Amino acid sequence: MSQYWSPAVRELTPYVPGEQPREQLVKLNTNENPYPPAPGVGEALRHYATDHLRLYPDPTSADLREALAENFQVTSSQVFVGNGSDEVLAFAFQAFFCHQAPLDVPAITYSFYPVYANLYRIELRKHPLTANWEVDIEALAANTERGGVIFANPNAPTGHAHSLETIEALLKRVTDRVVLIDEAYVDFGAESAVTLINRYPNLLVTGTFSKSRSLAGLRLGYAVGSEELIDGLERVKDSFNSFPVDSLASVVGIAALKDTEHFEACREYVITTRERTRQRLEALGFEVLPSKANFVLAQHPSFAGAQLYAGLRERGILVRHFNTPELNNFLRITIGTDDEMDSLIEALQTICA
Amino acid sequence: MSQYWSPAVRELTPYVPGEQPREQLVKLNTNENPYPPAPGVGEALRHYATDHLRLYPDPTSADLREALAENFQVTSSQVFVGNGSDEVLAFAFQAFFCHQAPLDVPAITYSFYPVYANLYRIELRKHPLTANWEVDIEALAANTERGGVIFANPNAPTGHAHSLETIEALLKRVTDRVVLIDEAYVDFGAESAVTLINRYPNLLVTGTFSKSRSLAGLRLGYAVGSEELIDGLERVKDSFNSFPVDSLASVVGIAALKDTEHFEACREYVITTRERTRQRLEALGFEVLPSKANFVLAQHPSFAGAQLYAGLRERGILVRHFNTPELNNFLRITIGTDDEMDSLIEALQTICA
Repeated sequence: MSQYWSPAVRELTPYVPGEQPREQLVKLNTNENPYPPAPGVGEALRHYATDHLRLYPDPTSADLREALAENFQVTSSQVFVGNGSDEVLAFAFQAFFCHQAPLDVPAITYSFYPVYANLYRIELRKHPLTANWEVDIEALAANTERGGVIFANPNAPTGHAHSLETIEALLKRVTDRVVLIDEAYVDFGAESAVTLINRYPNLLVTGTFSKSRSLAGLRLGYAVGSEELIDGLERVKDSFNSFPVDSLASVVGIAALKDTEHFEACREYVITTRERTRQRLEALGFEVLPSKANFVLAQHPSFAGAQLYAGLRERGILVRHFNTPELNNFLRITIGTDDEMDSLIEALQTICA
Repeated sequence: MSQYWSPAVRELTPYVPGEQPREQLVKLNTNENPYPPAPGVGEALRHYATDHLRLYPDPTSADLREALAENFQVTSSQVFVGNGSDEVLAFAFQAFFCHQAPLDVPAITYSFYPVYANLYRIELRKHPLTANWEVDIEALAANTERGGVIFANPNAPTGHAHSLETIEALLKRVTDRVVLIDEAYVDFGAESAVTLINRYPNLLVTGTFSKSRSLAGLRLGYAVGSEELIDGLERVKDSFNSFPVDSLASVVGIAALKDTEHFEACREYVITTRERTRQRLEALGFEVLPSKANFVLAQHPSFAGAQLYAGLRERGILVRHFNTPELNNFLRITIGTDDEMDSLIEALQTICA
């Protein structure tokens, strides 16, 4: 605490990201992709004309937006890019959710949302998940005040995804405020709502290169929505940082987008490994929530989450444990390579023996 | 304007960066360095282990902060890094200037400051420059309310720099609020106030890799100050984006910092070319404000700024013209290579003939 801080800053509760350990561990804690980015990424870096870095980037990131627009079959004026989807989400909170009315949000979801709400002094109305650990769409849609709606689909850290049909049913009911669907994990088996943006001008879909494109280290995220929503994001961005996406990130992102084959192969591997891991965890007595993401949330009837976390850590395996009443007993386990998951299962066999 | 925007967003007036033209022009409009980044930058990119990009960056950017700390002879807990100094400045406005009392700022300075103030709803108290186009330190120091003080040194777009002695005199008087000195251009002949941070816990100095390190395209900026100020910035950053500096930017920035020889040579070239350009502009009848930056602000008694700007543009030379009452008659001209400045002078000879 410092006398020099702005009063509101004294009350912030910052987000705590998963650990990035310096030592060599089987790292299953931050939902990174176990496979490398597309080979074109390395090519792009090796052939990059370094002299170009002396110039500012294109403030509109036209090339990258064009590549994303092509990928999603939308126009580039319906695409926004930022320094990771965390930045895109922060801009969206500021652009669309600073109203008198509260923002409707699931009680269990990406834990950065309450942090943004605190930063921008937005009131949250938190809706418990259903008994099946699903986002309660009915509860999110029920309010009539003009605040906003946000949730992740697939949700984190549960991994559950609603169908496009359910999402559209929500959009038919909520038309007067922004509905933000965070699709960070959508490529691991869920359906994207991007196909709905032309019909619902209040729908904003965010995404990231961190997960399915294996580029967490690059910090590249995006939003897709109607031009009026994209304009709102641009206004905030241009009041904050003219060039949030650097020239290298743009070139590397485009190279990653182009390689459809690598993308499809990696996500298939992850999906296959996830299903195999789920079966093996269940064989060990775990309850594993059905997941459409690159992680699973699992709990054991006889061993506490903290105990399992510590036991795995001792054996050089890092998973995520959330110290909250609802999630306390669970582990969130990122889907790694088959070898990494073998190590996990072996370690759990010993711990739970 | 959209019904979905937050009310405050409707009232934003975003910053307008200098043009990044797609066609081939002599580009003297955005104060980029005409020389390439250090050779080590290209090496770092060519040898980068691309697989590493699948992992999130170190959220604390420890290596880069360590390198900067060594460079400035401070500890790494006195260093903050961000996605360009624009982002660092935005965080600083939020961390230190959101008070009831207004922020003291020169009336003519980096034009992003009023944009941040608008974004964070901070009232500004603007102080005209002195008759010599200098930042009026006396006026900035005169207030007793607890708001804050910010200015650029060298100032933009005038290029004038105050001495370290003058800066310290200000700091002796203003002790109860943050004094932020934006040193984006300091390496082109001015004195850095970083040497004062251990004595003045309310002093924050910001800097960038965009200018003297030839890395505008990379988006890398920093702040140096007391631990309590750096903590304040971290709190805001961790409520906005856990990883604003990507893994590539960190490695590239460190490579640039290491090459002292390249750094010194490039800034010497720029300084020498600046002084030669000033003489030649004066020979053409221009008034050129004395500059310690990599640009000069100049006006001609017989030709309006807009007219000169248009004439240069027709001849393939892009400079910056600010359409404000005070600066309307001026051109801000970035110092390029000697060849580029030859083209500029030749074009002006024709236009002013």
